[in-house]
Amino acid sequence: MPVEADCPEALAARLEVVRAGGSHSGRARDWVSAEVPVEISFDGQAFAVMMASPADLEDFACGFARTEAGIEDLAAIQAITVQHRLEGIQLDIRLVGQTAMAFAERLLPGRSGCGLCGSRTLEDVVRQPAMIESGPVMTHAALDRALAVLHDAQPAGQLTGSLHAAAWFSIQGELRLVREDIGRHNALDKLLGSLWRQGLSMDEGFLVVTSRASYEMVTKAATAGIAIMAAISAPTALAVRLADSCGLTLIGFARPGRCLIYSHEHRFLDTPEFDSPPA
Amino acid sequence: MPVEADCPEALAARLEVVRAGGSHSGRARDWVSAEVPVEISFDGQAFAVMMASPADLEDFACGFARTEAGIEDLAAIQAITVQHRLEGIQLDIRLVGQTAMAFAERLLPGRSGCGLCGSRTLEDVVRQPAMIESGPVMTHAALDRALAVLHDAQPAGQLTGSLHAAAWFSIQGELRLVREDIGRHNALDKLLGSLWRQGLSMDEGFLVVTSRASYEMVTKAATAGIAIMAAISAPTALAVRLADSCGLTLIGFARPGRCLIYSHEHRFLDTPEFDSPPA
Repeated sequence: MPVEADCPEALAARLEVVRAGGSHSGRARDWVSAEVPVEISFDGQAFAVMMASPADLEDFACGFARTEAGIEDLAAIQAITVQHRLEGIQLDIRLVGQTAMAFAERLLPGRSGCGLCGSRTLEDVVRQPAMIESGPVMTHAALDRALAVLHDAQPAGQLTGSLHAAAWFSIQGELRLVREDIGRHNALDKLLGSLWRQGLSMDEGFLVVTSRASYEMVTKAATAGIAIMAAISAPTALAVRLADSCGLTLIGFARPGRCLIYSHEHRFLDTPEFDSPPA
Repeated sequence: MPVEADCPEALAARLEVVRAGGSHSGRARDWVSAEVPVEISFDGQAFAVMMASPADLEDFACGFARTEAGIEDLAAIQAITVQHRLEGIQLDIRLVGQTAMAFAERLLPGRSGCGLCGSRTLEDVVRQPAMIESGPVMTHAALDRALAVLHDAQPAGQLTGSLHAAAWFSIQGELRLVREDIGRHNALDKLLGSLWRQGLSMDEGFLVVTSRASYEMVTKAATAGIAIMAAISAPTALAVRLADSCGLTLIGFARPGRCLIYSHEHRFLDTPEFDSPPA
Protein backbone atom coordinates (compact mmCIF):
# COMPACT_ATOMS: atom_id res chain seq x y z
CA MET A 1 0.00 0.00 0.00
CA PRO A 2 2.77 2.48 -0.89
CA VAL A 3 2.11 6.12 -1.61
CA GLU A 4 2.34 6.54 -5.35
CA ALA A 5 2.21 10.18 -6.22
CA ASP A 6 1.88 13.36 -4.26
CA CYS A 7 -0.48 15.99 -5.54
CA PRO A 8 1.31 19.28 -6.23
CA GLU A 9 0.39 20.81 -2.88
CA ALA A 10 1.80 17.84 -0.96
CA LEU A 11 -1.52 17.63 0.86
CA ALA A 12 -2.75 14.32 -0.55
CA ALA A 13 -1.62 11.08 -2.13
CA ARG A 14 -3.34 8.29 -4.06
CA LEU A 15 -3.61 4.84 -2.53
CA GLU A 16 -5.09 1.55 -3.58
CA VAL A 17 -8.27 0.73 -1.64
CA VAL A 18 -11.02 -1.88 -1.65
CA ARG A 19 -14.57 -0.58 -2.07
CA ALA A 20 -17.24 -2.66 -0.33
CA GLY A 21 -20.97 -2.40 -0.91
CA GLY A 22 -22.90 -0.59 -3.58
CA SER A 23 -22.39 -0.72 -7.29
CA HIS A 24 -18.70 0.23 -7.25
CA SER A 25 -17.35 -2.73 -5.26
CA GLY A 26 -13.82 -3.85 -5.99
CA ARG A 27 -10.33 -2.41 -6.11
CA ALA A 28 -9.97 1.29 -6.76
CA ARG A 29 -7.56 4.18 -6.27
CA ASP A 30 -8.51 6.96 -3.91
CA TRP A 31 -7.05 10.19 -2.55
CA VAL A 32 -5.88 10.17 1.06
CA SER A 33 -4.50 13.13 3.00
CA ALA A 34 -0.82 13.27 3.83
CA GLU A 35 0.14 13.34 7.52
CA VAL A 36 3.69 14.06 8.64
CA PRO A 37 5.31 14.71 12.02
CA VAL A 38 6.50 18.32 12.08
CA GLU A 39 8.91 19.42 14.76
CA ILE A 40 9.09 23.12 15.57
CA SER A 41 12.24 24.36 17.21
CA PHE A 42 13.46 27.81 18.19
CA ASP A 43 17.16 28.42 17.57
CA GLY A 44 17.69 24.68 17.42
CA GLN A 45 15.91 23.98 20.71
CA ALA A 46 13.05 21.50 20.19
CA PHE A 47 9.73 22.99 21.28
CA ALA A 48 6.86 20.87 19.96
CA VAL A 49 5.90 18.17 17.48
CA MET A 50 2.60 18.13 15.64
CA MET A 51 1.13 15.79 13.07
CA ALA A 52 0.43 18.10 10.14
CA SER A 53 -0.09 18.41 6.40
CA PRO A 54 3.30 19.12 4.79
CA ALA A 55 2.40 22.35 3.01
CA ASP A 56 2.61 26.08 3.84
CA LEU A 57 5.27 25.34 6.42
CA GLU A 58 6.65 28.86 6.75
CA ASP A 59 3.12 30.13 7.40
CA PHE A 60 2.76 27.40 10.00
CA ALA A 61 5.99 28.35 11.73
CA CYS A 62 5.03 32.03 11.90
CA GLY A 63 1.47 31.39 13.07
CA PHE A 64 2.63 28.94 15.72
CA ALA A 65 5.31 31.35 16.91
CA ARG A 66 2.67 34.00 17.39
CA THR A 67 -0.17 31.97 18.92
CA GLU A 68 1.77 29.44 20.99
CA ALA A 69 5.15 30.99 21.68
CA GLY A 70 4.15 34.59 22.28
CA ILE A 71 6.25 36.14 19.49
CA GLU A 72 4.39 39.38 18.82
CA ASP A 73 6.67 41.05 16.30
CA LEU A 74 7.33 39.48 12.91
CA ALA A 75 10.69 41.27 12.79
CA ALA A 76 11.79 39.10 15.72
CA ILE A 77 11.83 36.13 13.33
CA GLN A 78 15.15 36.24 11.51
CA ALA A 79 14.83 33.07 9.43
CA ILE A 80 12.85 29.85 9.07
CA THR A 81 14.63 26.66 8.01
CA VAL A 82 12.68 23.69 6.63
CA GLN A 83 14.47 20.34 6.68
CA HIS A 84 12.92 17.18 5.29
CA ARG A 85 14.13 14.16 7.22
CA LEU A 86 13.27 10.49 7.21
CA GLU A 87 11.16 10.79 10.37
CA GLY A 88 9.38 13.98 9.32
CA ILE A 89 9.98 17.67 8.88
CA GLN A 90 12.03 19.98 11.05
CA LEU A 91 11.01 23.62 11.16
CA ASP A 92 13.55 25.80 12.90
CA ILE A 93 12.72 29.38 13.75
CA ARG A 94 15.73 31.60 14.27
CA LEU A 95 14.93 34.60 16.47
CA VAL A 96 16.86 37.87 16.54
CA GLY A 97 19.34 38.11 19.41
CA GLN A 98 17.40 39.89 22.10
CA THR A 99 14.13 38.02 21.53
CA ALA A 100 15.98 34.72 21.43
CA MET A 101 17.50 35.32 24.84
CA ALA A 102 14.25 36.51 26.40
CA PHE A 103 12.43 33.59 24.82
CA ALA A 104 14.87 30.99 26.06
CA GLU A 105 14.52 32.36 29.58
CA ARG A 106 10.76 32.73 29.49
CA LEU A 107 9.49 29.63 27.80
CA LEU A 108 11.82 26.79 27.07
CA PRO A 109 12.42 25.40 30.54
CA GLY A 110 8.75 24.85 31.38
CA ARG A 111 7.14 24.34 28.02
CA SER A 112 7.31 21.50 25.61
CA GLY A 113 4.83 19.29 23.85
CA CYS A 114 2.46 19.74 20.98
CA GLY A 115 0.39 22.62 19.80
CA LEU A 116 -2.68 21.44 21.60
CA CYS A 117 -1.43 22.36 25.01
CA GLY A 118 2.25 23.12 24.85
CA SER A 119 2.53 22.40 28.51
CA ARG A 120 2.83 19.71 31.06
CA THR A 121 0.93 21.15 34.00
CA LEU A 122 -2.49 22.70 34.51
CA GLU A 123 -1.04 26.09 35.44
CA ASP A 124 0.50 26.48 31.98
CA VAL A 125 -2.64 25.71 30.01
CA VAL A 126 -5.08 28.52 30.50
CA ARG A 127 -3.96 31.77 28.90
CA GLN A 128 -6.06 34.90 28.84
CA PRO A 129 -5.59 36.84 25.59
CA ALA A 130 -5.78 40.63 25.67
CA MET A 131 -9.31 42.09 25.56
CA ILE A 132 -10.63 42.80 22.06
CA GLU A 133 -12.09 46.26 22.52
CA SER A 134 -13.31 47.29 19.09
CA GLY A 135 -13.62 45.21 15.92
CA PRO A 136 -15.89 45.39 12.87
CA VAL A 137 -19.60 44.67 12.44
CA MET A 138 -20.79 42.11 9.89
CA THR A 139 -24.11 41.05 8.40
CA HIS A 140 -25.70 37.64 8.08
CA ALA A 141 -25.55 38.16 4.32
CA ALA A 142 -21.75 38.43 4.46
CA LEU A 143 -21.53 35.15 6.40
CA ASP A 144 -23.75 33.47 3.83
CA ARG A 145 -21.58 34.75 0.99
CA ALA A 146 -18.54 33.31 2.77
CA LEU A 147 -20.17 29.91 3.30
CA ALA A 148 -21.21 29.78 -0.35
CA VAL A 149 -17.59 29.82 -1.58
CA LEU A 150 -15.95 27.92 1.28
CA HIS A 151 -16.43 24.43 -0.15
CA ASP A 152 -14.77 25.22 -3.45
CA ALA A 153 -11.88 26.91 -1.63
CA GLN A 154 -10.74 23.54 -0.21
CA PRO A 155 -9.31 21.57 -3.15
CA ALA A 156 -7.43 19.02 -1.04
CA GLY A 157 -10.35 18.68 1.36
CA GLN A 158 -12.60 17.86 -1.58
CA LEU A 159 -10.17 15.20 -2.79
CA THR A 160 -9.67 13.48 0.54
CA GLY A 161 -12.65 14.30 2.73
CA SER A 162 -10.34 14.60 5.70
CA LEU A 163 -8.88 18.09 5.90
CA HIS A 164 -9.83 21.07 7.98
CA ALA A 165 -9.72 24.60 6.63
CA ALA A 166 -9.40 28.05 8.13
CA ALA A 167 -10.40 30.96 5.92
CA TRP A 168 -10.24 34.72 6.15
CA PHE A 169 -12.96 36.91 4.63
CA SER A 170 -13.43 40.63 4.15
CA ILE A 171 -16.21 42.06 6.27
CA GLN A 172 -18.41 41.89 3.14
CA GLY A 173 -17.77 38.14 2.91
CA GLU A 174 -15.21 38.03 0.10
CA LEU A 175 -12.61 35.26 0.40
CA ARG A 176 -9.13 36.61 1.12
CA LEU A 177 -7.11 33.56 2.14
CA VAL A 178 -7.56 29.91 3.03
CA ARG A 179 -5.31 27.23 4.49
CA GLU A 180 -5.95 23.46 4.76
CA ASP A 181 -4.46 20.94 7.17
CA ILE A 182 -5.31 17.58 8.73
CA GLY A 183 -5.26 19.40 12.08
CA ARG A 184 -7.69 22.23 12.73
CA HIS A 185 -5.21 24.00 15.01
CA ASN A 186 -2.58 23.78 12.29
CA ALA A 187 -4.92 25.10 9.60
CA LEU A 188 -5.63 28.10 11.82
CA ASP A 189 -1.94 28.69 12.62
CA LYS A 190 -1.13 28.52 8.91
CA LEU A 191 -3.83 31.05 8.07
CA LEU A 192 -2.80 33.40 10.88
CA GLY A 193 0.86 33.07 9.93
CA SER A 194 0.10 33.86 6.31
CA LEU A 195 -2.05 36.88 7.18
CA TRP A 196 0.73 38.11 9.43
CA ARG A 197 3.45 37.66 6.82
CA GLN A 198 1.35 39.44 4.20
CA GLY A 199 0.70 42.31 6.55
CA LEU A 200 -3.07 41.89 6.28
CA SER A 201 -4.99 43.51 9.08
CA MET A 202 -6.86 41.03 11.26
CA ASP A 203 -9.41 43.49 12.58
CA GLU A 204 -11.14 44.23 9.29
CA GLY A 205 -12.66 40.88 8.41
CA PHE A 206 -13.84 37.64 9.92
CA LEU A 207 -12.53 34.11 10.37
CA VAL A 208 -14.34 30.92 9.36
CA VAL A 209 -13.15 27.48 10.48
CA THR A 210 -14.65 24.29 9.08
CA SER A 211 -14.31 22.50 12.41
CA ARG A 212 -15.55 22.91 15.94
CA ALA A 213 -14.46 25.88 18.04
CA SER A 214 -12.44 24.61 20.96
CA TYR A 215 -10.86 26.61 23.74
CA GLU A 216 -7.55 26.57 21.90
CA MET A 217 -9.00 27.72 18.60
CA VAL A 218 -10.51 30.76 20.33
CA THR A 219 -7.23 31.38 22.17
CA LYS A 220 -5.31 31.38 18.90
CA ALA A 221 -7.77 33.69 17.13
CA ALA A 222 -7.97 36.14 20.03
CA THR A 223 -4.19 36.14 20.49
CA ALA A 224 -3.88 37.22 16.86
CA GLY A 225 -6.38 40.03 17.46
CA ILE A 226 -9.32 38.59 15.52
CA ALA A 227 -12.70 39.95 16.64
CA ILE A 228 -15.16 37.64 14.85
CA MET A 229 -14.82 33.86 14.49
CA ALA A 230 -17.40 31.57 12.90
CA ALA A 231 -17.23 27.79 13.17
CA ILE A 232 -19.15 25.40 10.94
CA SER A 233 -19.61 23.07 13.88
CA ALA A 234 -20.17 23.51 17.63
CA PRO A 235 -18.11 25.40 20.20
CA THR A 236 -17.27 23.98 23.61
CA ALA A 237 -18.43 25.58 26.84
CA LEU A 238 -14.89 26.66 27.69
CA ALA A 239 -14.47 28.23 24.24
CA VAL A 240 -17.66 30.23 24.80
CA ARG A 241 -16.53 31.36 28.24
CA LEU A 242 -13.16 32.47 26.88
CA ALA A 243 -14.71 34.27 23.89
CA ASP A 244 -17.09 36.02 26.27
CA SER A 245 -14.33 37.11 28.63
CA CYS A 246 -11.91 38.36 25.96
CA GLY A 247 -14.42 40.20 23.78
CA LEU A 248 -14.49 37.88 20.75
CA THR A 249 -17.71 37.34 18.78
CA LEU A 250 -18.12 33.57 18.53
CA ILE A 251 -20.51 32.12 15.95
CA GLY A 252 -21.24 28.40 15.77
CA PHE A 253 -23.14 25.98 13.54
CA ALA A 254 -22.71 28.42 10.66
CA ARG A 255 -24.93 27.05 7.89
CA PRO A 256 -26.55 28.78 4.92
CA GLY A 257 -29.18 31.12 6.28
CA ARG A 258 -28.74 30.33 9.97
CA CYS A 259 -26.24 30.22 12.80
CA LEU A 260 -25.92 30.58 16.55
CA ILE A 261 -24.09 33.46 18.23
CA TYR A 262 -22.51 32.57 21.55
CA SER A 263 -20.85 35.80 22.61
CA HIS A 264 -20.68 39.53 21.82
CA GLU A 265 -23.53 39.45 19.32
CA HIS A 266 -23.33 43.22 18.80
CA ARG A 267 -20.88 42.61 15.93
CA PHE A 268 -23.38 40.41 14.04
CA LEU A 269 -26.42 41.93 12.34
CA ASP A 270 -29.03 39.33 11.44
CA THR A 271 -29.92 41.22 8.26
CA PRO A 272 -29.45 40.61 4.53
CA GLU A 273 -27.25 43.69 4.08
CA PHE A 274 -26.27 46.86 5.87
CA ASP A 275 -28.86 49.59 5.51
CA SER A 276 -25.91 51.90 5.47
CA PRO A 277 -22.26 50.91 5.60
CA PRO A 278 -21.01 50.51 9.17
CA ALA A 279 -18.74 53.16 10.58
CA MET B 1 -22.68 33.67 29.61
CA PRO B 2 -22.08 31.53 32.70
CA VAL B 3 -22.53 27.78 32.69
CA GLU B 4 -25.80 27.08 34.43
CA ALA B 5 -26.15 23.41 35.01
CA ASP B 6 -24.10 20.37 34.19
CA CYS B 7 -25.88 17.37 32.79
CA PRO B 8 -25.42 14.28 34.98
CA GLU B 9 -22.58 12.91 32.93
CA ALA B 10 -20.61 16.15 33.18
CA LEU B 11 -20.25 16.08 29.41
CA ALA B 12 -22.42 19.06 28.57
CA ALA B 13 -23.85 22.27 29.97
CA ARG B 14 -26.63 24.65 28.91
CA LEU B 15 -25.77 28.14 27.79
CA GLU B 16 -27.71 31.12 26.56
CA VAL B 17 -27.27 31.70 22.82
CA VAL B 18 -28.68 33.92 20.10
CA ARG B 19 -30.23 32.14 17.12
CA ALA B 20 -29.95 34.01 13.83
CA GLY B 21 -31.89 33.25 10.67
CA GLY B 22 -34.82 30.98 10.11
CA SER B 23 -38.05 30.84 12.05
CA HIS B 24 -36.45 30.37 15.47
CA SER B 25 -34.51 33.63 15.67
CA GLY B 26 -33.96 35.12 19.10
CA ARG B 27 -32.54 34.13 22.45
CA ALA B 28 -32.53 30.47 23.35
CA ARG B 29 -30.81 27.99 25.60
CA ASP B 30 -28.64 25.32 24.03
CA TRP B 31 -26.41 22.43 25.09
CA VAL B 32 -22.67 22.88 24.73
CA SER B 33 -20.00 20.30 25.46
CA ALA B 34 -17.82 20.73 28.52
CA GLU B 35 -14.07 21.08 27.95
CA VAL B 36 -11.59 20.92 30.81
CA PRO B 37 -7.78 20.76 31.00
CA VAL B 38 -6.83 17.34 32.38
CA GLU B 39 -3.30 16.80 33.60
CA ILE B 40 -2.03 13.24 33.76
CA SER B 41 0.84 12.54 36.10
CA PHE B 42 2.65 9.37 37.11
CA ASP B 43 3.58 9.18 40.78
CA GLY B 44 3.18 12.94 41.03
CA GLN B 45 5.41 13.67 38.02
CA ALA B 46 3.52 15.72 35.42
CA PHE B 47 3.44 13.92 32.07
CA ALA B 48 0.84 15.53 29.79
CA VAL B 49 -2.13 17.87 29.68
CA MET B 50 -5.09 17.32 27.38
CA MET B 51 -8.31 19.26 26.84
CA ALA B 52 -10.96 16.62 27.57
CA SER B 53 -14.54 15.95 28.60
CA PRO B 54 -14.62 15.54 32.40
CA ALA B 55 -16.18 12.07 32.56
CA ASP B 56 -14.86 8.48 32.73
CA LEU B 57 -11.58 9.78 34.06
CA GLU B 58 -10.30 6.50 35.51
CA ASP B 59 -10.91 4.85 32.13
CA PHE B 60 -9.02 7.73 30.53
CA ALA B 61 -6.07 7.33 32.89
CA CYS B 62 -5.81 3.60 32.26
CA GLY B 63 -6.20 3.86 28.49
CA PHE B 64 -3.64 6.66 28.29
CA ALA B 65 -1.20 4.73 30.48
CA ARG B 66 -1.45 1.83 28.08
CA THR B 67 -1.40 3.58 24.72
CA GLU B 68 0.91 6.51 25.47
CA ALA B 69 3.06 5.46 28.40
CA GLY B 70 3.67 1.83 27.56
CA ILE B 71 2.12 0.33 30.72
CA GLU B 72 1.21 -3.16 29.55
CA ASP B 73 -0.02 -4.75 32.77
CA LEU B 74 -3.06 -3.38 34.60
CA ALA B 75 -1.65 -4.74 37.84
CA ALA B 76 1.17 -2.21 37.51
CA ILE B 77 -1.37 0.53 38.25
CA GLN B 78 -1.74 0.70 42.01
CA ALA B 79 -4.16 3.61 42.29
CA ILE B 80 -5.67 6.52 40.35
CA THR B 81 -6.37 9.80 42.12
CA VAL B 82 -8.75 12.38 40.63
CA GLN B 83 -8.45 15.91 41.95
CA HIS B 84 -10.70 18.73 40.81
CA ARG B 85 -8.86 22.03 40.90
CA LEU B 86 -9.68 25.54 39.82
CA GLU B 87 -7.56 25.23 36.66
CA GLY B 88 -8.79 21.76 35.72
CA ILE B 89 -8.50 18.15 36.76
CA GLN B 90 -5.42 16.32 37.98
CA LEU B 91 -5.27 12.60 37.30
CA ASP B 92 -2.43 10.93 39.12
CA ILE B 93 -1.50 7.34 38.33
CA ARG B 94 0.41 5.57 41.08
CA LEU B 95 2.50 2.69 39.71
CA VAL B 96 3.74 -0.27 41.72
CA GLY B 97 7.36 0.04 42.84
CA GLN B 98 9.28 -1.74 40.14
CA THR B 99 7.25 -0.35 37.24
CA ALA B 100 7.48 3.13 38.68
CA MET B 101 11.25 3.02 38.76
CA ALA B 102 11.56 1.56 35.28
CA PHE B 103 9.05 4.08 34.00
CA ALA B 104 10.80 7.07 35.51
CA GLU B 105 14.04 5.98 33.92
CA ARG B 106 12.57 5.13 30.53
CA LEU B 107 10.14 7.90 29.82
CA LEU B 108 10.02 10.94 32.00
CA PRO B 109 13.24 12.71 31.02
CA GLY B 110 12.51 12.86 27.31
CA ARG B 111 8.74 12.85 27.14
CA SER B 112 6.23 15.46 28.00
CA GLY B 113 3.40 17.20 26.27
CA CYS B 114 -0.06 16.21 25.26
CA GLY B 115 -1.60 12.98 24.06
CA LEU B 116 -1.28 13.95 20.44
CA CYS B 117 2.43 13.46 20.31
CA GLY B 118 3.80 13.17 23.82
CA SER B 119 7.18 14.17 22.55
CA ARG B 120 9.30 17.09 21.61
CA THR B 121 11.46 15.69 18.84
CA LEU B 122 10.84 13.76 15.65
CA GLU B 123 12.65 10.67 16.90
CA ASP B 124 10.12 10.17 19.69
CA VAL B 125 7.02 10.38 17.53
CA VAL B 126 6.89 7.33 15.34
CA ARG B 127 6.27 4.14 17.27
CA GLN B 128 5.79 0.77 15.63
CA PRO B 129 3.26 -1.36 17.52
CA ALA B 130 3.73 -5.12 17.64
CA MET B 131 2.46 -7.04 14.59
CA ILE B 132 -1.17 -8.19 14.81
CA GLU B 133 -0.86 -11.76 13.58
CA SER B 134 -4.35 -13.24 13.91
CA GLY B 135 -7.62 -11.47 14.73
CA PRO B 136 -11.25 -12.20 13.88
CA VAL B 137 -13.16 -11.99 10.60
CA MET B 138 -16.29 -9.82 10.30
CA THR B 139 -19.04 -9.32 7.75
CA HIS B 140 -20.39 -6.18 6.15
CA ALA B 141 -23.72 -7.01 7.82
CA ALA B 142 -22.09 -6.77 11.25
CA LEU B 143 -20.66 -3.33 10.42
CA ASP B 144 -24.06 -2.16 9.26
CA ARG B 145 -25.66 -3.41 12.49
CA ALA B 146 -23.05 -1.44 14.43
CA LEU B 147 -23.62 1.75 12.44
CA ALA B 148 -27.38 1.45 12.93
CA VAL B 149 -27.10 1.77 16.73
CA LEU B 150 -24.11 4.10 16.94
CA HIS B 151 -26.03 7.36 16.75
CA ASP B 152 -28.33 6.52 19.66
CA ALA B 153 -25.34 5.38 21.71
CA GLN B 154 -24.03 8.96 21.91
CA PRO B 155 -26.41 10.86 24.21
CA ALA B 156 -24.08 13.78 24.89
CA GLY B 157 -23.06 13.94 21.25
CA GLN B 158 -26.71 14.23 20.26
CA LEU B 159 -27.22 17.08 22.75
CA THR B 160 -24.20 19.10 21.75
CA GLY B 161 -23.24 18.11 18.22
CA SER B 162 -19.59 18.34 19.17
CA LEU B 163 -18.41 15.10 20.75
CA HIS B 164 -16.50 12.19 19.29
CA ALA B 165 -17.25 8.61 20.22
CA ALA B 166 -15.31 5.37 20.22
CA ALA B 167 -17.34 2.18 20.43
CA TRP B 168 -16.60 -1.49 20.80
CA PHE B 169 -18.75 -4.13 19.11
CA SER B 170 -18.90 -7.90 19.18
CA ILE B 171 -17.84 -9.50 15.92
CA GLN B 172 -21.57 -9.87 15.14
CA GLY B 173 -22.03 -6.10 15.49
CA GLU B 174 -23.62 -5.89 18.94
CA LEU B 175 -22.69 -2.80 20.95
CA ARG B 176 -20.54 -3.63 23.97
CA LEU B 177 -19.21 -0.29 25.15
CA VAL B 178 -19.03 3.33 24.08
CA ARG B 179 -17.19 6.42 25.34
CA GLU B 180 -17.65 10.04 24.32
CA ASP B 181 -15.20 12.95 24.51
CA ILE B 182 -14.52 16.30 22.84
CA GLY B 183 -11.20 14.78 21.73
CA ARG B 184 -11.19 11.72 19.47
CA HIS B 185 -7.93 10.48 20.99
CA ASN B 186 -9.42 10.81 24.45
CA ALA B 187 -12.63 8.98 23.49
CA LEU B 188 -10.48 6.12 22.21
CA ASP B 189 -8.26 6.07 25.30
CA LYS B 190 -11.37 6.02 27.53
CA LEU B 191 -12.83 3.12 25.59
CA LEU B 192 -9.59 1.16 25.62
CA GLY B 193 -9.09 1.86 29.32
CA SER B 194 -12.58 0.68 30.13
CA LEU B 195 -12.23 -2.50 28.06
CA TRP B 196 -8.94 -3.16 29.81
CA ARG B 197 -10.33 -2.59 33.31
CA GLN B 198 -13.32 -4.85 32.58
CA GLY B 199 -11.03 -7.56 31.30
CA LEU B 200 -12.81 -7.65 27.92
CA SER B 201 -10.79 -9.26 25.18
CA MET B 202 -9.82 -6.87 22.40
CA ASP B 203 -9.27 -9.50 19.75
CA GLU B 204 -12.85 -10.73 19.54
CA GLY B 205 -14.68 -7.70 18.21
CA PHE B 206 -14.14 -4.50 16.26
CA LEU B 207 -13.69 -0.82 16.98
CA VAL B 208 -15.72 2.01 15.45
CA VAL B 209 -14.67 5.66 15.81
CA THR B 210 -16.93 8.51 14.73
CA SER B 211 -13.99 10.60 13.58
CA ARG B 212 -11.19 10.34 11.08
CA ALA B 213 -8.47 7.72 11.48
CA SER B 214 -5.18 9.47 12.08
CA TYR B 215 -1.79 7.94 12.59
CA GLU B 216 -2.18 8.22 16.33
CA MET B 217 -5.62 6.63 16.41
CA VAL B 218 -4.23 3.59 14.60
CA THR B 219 -1.21 3.54 16.91
CA LYS B 220 -3.46 3.51 19.98
CA ALA B 221 -5.73 0.77 18.62
CA ALA B 222 -2.86 -1.43 17.51
CA THR B 223 -0.98 -0.92 20.77
CA ALA B 224 -4.04 -2.25 22.59
CA GLY B 225 -4.10 -5.30 20.29
CA ILE B 226 -7.18 -4.41 18.25
CA ALA B 227 -7.27 -6.08 14.82
CA ILE B 228 -10.15 -4.26 13.10
CA MET B 229 -10.84 -0.52 13.23
CA ALA B 230 -13.57 1.27 11.31
CA ALA B 231 -13.74 5.07 11.04
CA ILE B 232 -16.82 7.00 9.97
CA SER B 233 -14.60 9.48 8.17
CA ALA B 234 -11.33 9.28 6.23
CA PRO B 235 -7.95 7.92 7.25
CA THR B 236 -4.69 9.70 6.56
CA ALA B 237 -1.98 8.24 4.35
CA LEU B 238 0.30 7.69 7.34
CA ALA B 239 -2.49 5.90 9.21
CA VAL B 240 -2.96 3.57 6.23
CA ARG B 241 0.75 2.88 6.01
CA LEU B 242 0.96 2.09 9.73
CA ALA B 243 -2.13 -0.14 9.64
CA ASP B 244 -0.65 -1.95 6.68
CA SER B 245 2.69 -2.48 8.36
CA CYS B 246 1.35 -3.64 11.74
CA GLY B 247 -1.37 -5.96 10.47
CA LEU B 248 -4.46 -3.92 11.39
CA THR B 249 -7.57 -3.97 9.18
CA LEU B 250 -8.45 -0.32 8.59
CA ILE B 251 -11.91 0.59 7.30
CA GLY B 252 -12.82 4.17 6.40
CA PHE B 253 -15.91 6.13 5.32
CA ALA B 254 -18.06 3.53 7.08
CA ARG B 255 -21.61 4.37 6.02
CA PRO B 256 -24.74 2.22 5.87
CA GLY B 257 -24.21 -0.35 3.12
CA ARG B 258 -20.78 0.81 1.99
CA CYS B 259 -17.24 1.48 3.16
CA LEU B 260 -13.62 1.50 1.99
CA ILE B 261 -11.02 -0.99 3.23
CA TYR B 262 -7.49 0.38 3.30
CA SER B 263 -5.48 -2.54 4.68
CA HIS B 264 -5.66 -6.26 5.46
CA GLU B 265 -9.05 -6.76 3.84
CA HIS B 266 -8.97 -10.50 4.54
CA ARG B 267 -10.74 -9.81 7.87
CA PHE B 268 -13.70 -8.12 6.15
CA LEU B 269 -16.24 -10.16 4.16
CA ASP B 270 -18.39 -8.00 1.91
CA THR B 271 -21.41 -10.24 2.53
CA PRO B 272 -24.70 -9.90 4.38
CA GLU B 273 -23.86 -12.71 6.82
CA PHE B 274 -21.41 -15.57 7.27
CA ASP B 275 -22.35 -18.62 5.19
CA SER B 276 -20.86 -20.57 8.02
CA PRO B 277 -19.33 -19.18 11.20
CA PRO B 278 -15.66 -18.29 10.76
CA ALA B 279 -13.08 -20.54 12.35
